[in-house]
Amino acid sequence: MKTRATGRKRSSSPSLTSFARQLLAEWKELGLPLADETLVIAVSGGADSTALFLGFDELTKKEKLRLNLIVAHLDHGLREASKKDARWVSQFAKELGYDTMTGRAKLEKTPKRATNNLEQAARKARYEFLLRTAKKKHSTLVLTAHTLDDQAETVMMRLLRGSAAEGLSGTQPIRQLAPGSTVKLVRPLLSWARRSDTESYCAGRQIDFRVDEMNEDESFSRVRVRKQLLPLMKSFNNRIVETLSRTATLLSEDATALTDEARRLLELATPNSQATSGNNSETKLPSLNVDVLLKAPAAVRRRALREWILRTRGDLKRLEMVHLLAVEKLLSGERGGRVAELPAGMKVTRKRGLLELSAKKRVEKGPGDA
Amino acid sequence: MKTRATGRKRSSSPSLTSFARQLLAEWKELGLPLADETLVIAVSGGADSTALFLGFDELTKKEKLRLNLIVAHLDHGLREASKKDARWVSQFAKELGYDTMTGRAKLEKTPKRATNNLEQAARKARYEFLLRTAKKKHSTLVLTAHTLDDQAETVMMRLLRGSAAEGLSGTQPIRQLAPGSTVKLVRPLLSWARRSDTESYCAGRQIDFRVDEMNEDESFSRVRVRKQLLPLMKSFNNRIVETLSRTATLLSEDATALTDEARRLLELATPNSQATSGNNSETKLPSLNVDVLLKAPAAVRRRALREWILRTRGDLKRLEMVHLLAVEKLLSGERGGRVAELPAGMKVTRKRGLLELSAKKRVEKGPGDA
Repeated sequence: MKTRATGRKRSSSPSLTSFARQLLAEWKELGLPLADETLVIAVSGGADSTALFLGFDELTKKEKLRLNLIVAHLDHGLREASKKDARWVSQFAKELGYDTMTGRAKLEKTPKRATNNLEQAARKARYEFLLRTAKKKHSTLVLTAHTLDDQAETVMMRLLRGSAAEGLSGTQPIRQLAPGSTVKLVRPLLSWARRSDTESYCAGRQIDFRVDEMNEDESFSRVRVRKQLLPLMKSFNNRIVETLSRTATLLSEDATALTDEARRLLELATPNSQATSGNNSETKLPSLNVDVLLKAPAAVRRRALREWILRTRGDLKRLEMVHLLAVEKLLSGERGGRVAELPAGMKVTRKRGLLELSAKKRVEKGPGDA
Repeated sequence: MKTRATGRKRSSSPSLTSFARQLLAEWKELGLPLADETLVIAVSGGADSTALFLGFDELTKKEKLRLNLIVAHLDHGLREASKKDARWVSQFAKELGYDTMTGRAKLEKTPKRATNNLEQAARKARYEFLLRTAKKKHSTLVLTAHTLDDQAETVMMRLLRGSAAEGLSGTQPIRQLAPGSTVKLVRPLLSWARRSDTESYCAGRQIDFRVDEMNEDESFSRVRVRKQLLPLMKSFNNRIVETLSRTATLLSEDATALTDEARRLLELATPNSQATSGNNSETKLPSLNVDVLLKAPAAVRRRALREWILRTRGDLKRLEMVHLLAVEKLLSGERGGRVAELPAGMKVTRKRGLLELSAKKRVEKGPGDA
């Protein structure tokens, strides 16, 4: 990224810090608006989000951007210091002249249960809060401060869990904040900033960011990836974070091309091509022609099946590769009427040369049945 | 794999060990001949290759296969014990009733230089020896004993170095032994056998395999991946070896589909579609139409460029992702006559809407210039 920053005409922004200059370059690269918009910036008080906010503060005050900045802070209520963090963020934003929207999550602290589930619940609460805040402030741009280091951690988390190209693509710099929403979630640090860059920028601006002790808690897989796995990988390749991020980008391009192919296949495999007319999510998707699917490359077929399930269910929650492989097996199966089970009580059946997707009646389990 | 073995009718092979049964299942899965062929089996004397050889010995003696087995052993001459290993292998094969072809590599032991280069030179010498042996014995099937563990190590080596889907696909169970050769290199243990399986099988047959101390030498990256990185990853996912192998298979399917797409793109981008007629490797490939390339998905375009370079140069040696990215940059460049440098003195030039590939005169360097 240095080359990019260096390559720019310095005279046009003589007083910008290197951090702000790179942030602006990425903002333009992503094709995002330079004026007349409200940005909701998620600020926990840690180095990354504080730097992100400070970067936009610098770009606004130096008139490179004419955007309205709103700080959003969710108090997860999981740590002793969390109230202090919330006060610190809103005080700090106020001193710089910005409003802070503070929310409070109602997460249950269940230390005996899997901490990774707690982390997921916290993330869900955070995104819901950001969406509410964006709506309240009539903003369509919510910003989070994920860095290159976060990207490398995500790639390794996915690899450890077992992933195909989609999972290993990591996080995307822009996506919809929620399905069907016009609010975009933007990560302007993702493709260039190291965690050390955010820390240096905060230090340079003499801001003493907060430290989240959950970032040190090795009962979280992500913290162990950061503290143990990536340092070991760095002993093989000093630029492992950048290397993993580049791999993620390449695999993301692969996934995009194959997903487009898969959509075309889905259309071909749908008798009477009803799939394309089904923009209404209520429409039940027709069955798929097994012979058409069998002629496609495995990589495209697998994605077509995934997309078919997504369109019917509305989400891919808990859908793992094993489920798709089970559906794939139905295709080559010789007996008729075979069934593959999917999560959330759905199943795929092969009948007379067609694959059908249907819901089973769900049986609610008591807490002791898990 | 247990399921596969369990699912088979045990009555059909009552006396086969589980290892031999799984080996036979994989051999059939790969569509390989059951009779009237000569197999050249590369045996170092370690657990994996000894087990591979013993497995075929069992399948032959129990009349599941009617194949002629030849043991091939290359003495790399790099270790004190290497002569002993060679004697052990040929003695052991003789006791079981097989001939051994032994070769000796002339590798220079240069401890001051990169050990990974030495490992590559050893691999090259080994494959050349196997090809010579196959030709001498009129065999078209050379077998090596790569296991699931080797596959996981390869995936991690590639990830550490920086790879796209092709690299992360790992090793394929069947490939040509050399470009243009009719001899196939087959890895019948790759998709199912753990290293612990080969050790148990040797133990069960009361064969005391040899231990290669180079497998313990942590100056080799691969040994460090095996001894440090994979054990740490296993602490996150107990089945990490199988997980990585599955990811490799999925990414290999992606790469296959995208490579086929890329070949079609290459044809489209070649004025007068001369590309398809160029089976003769002497034929200089025509230039590529920049506009056609720009319309394709990035993932397909990148592979088309790679294939174009491969067809022209005859190999992809030392071609790294950075080189392809440099060629990609030419496409979007606005100035004419820009150049991207490739390894081995080749370069790609953009001229009047076309990409051209050409060789620069190579300057031979003296040994002191490196």
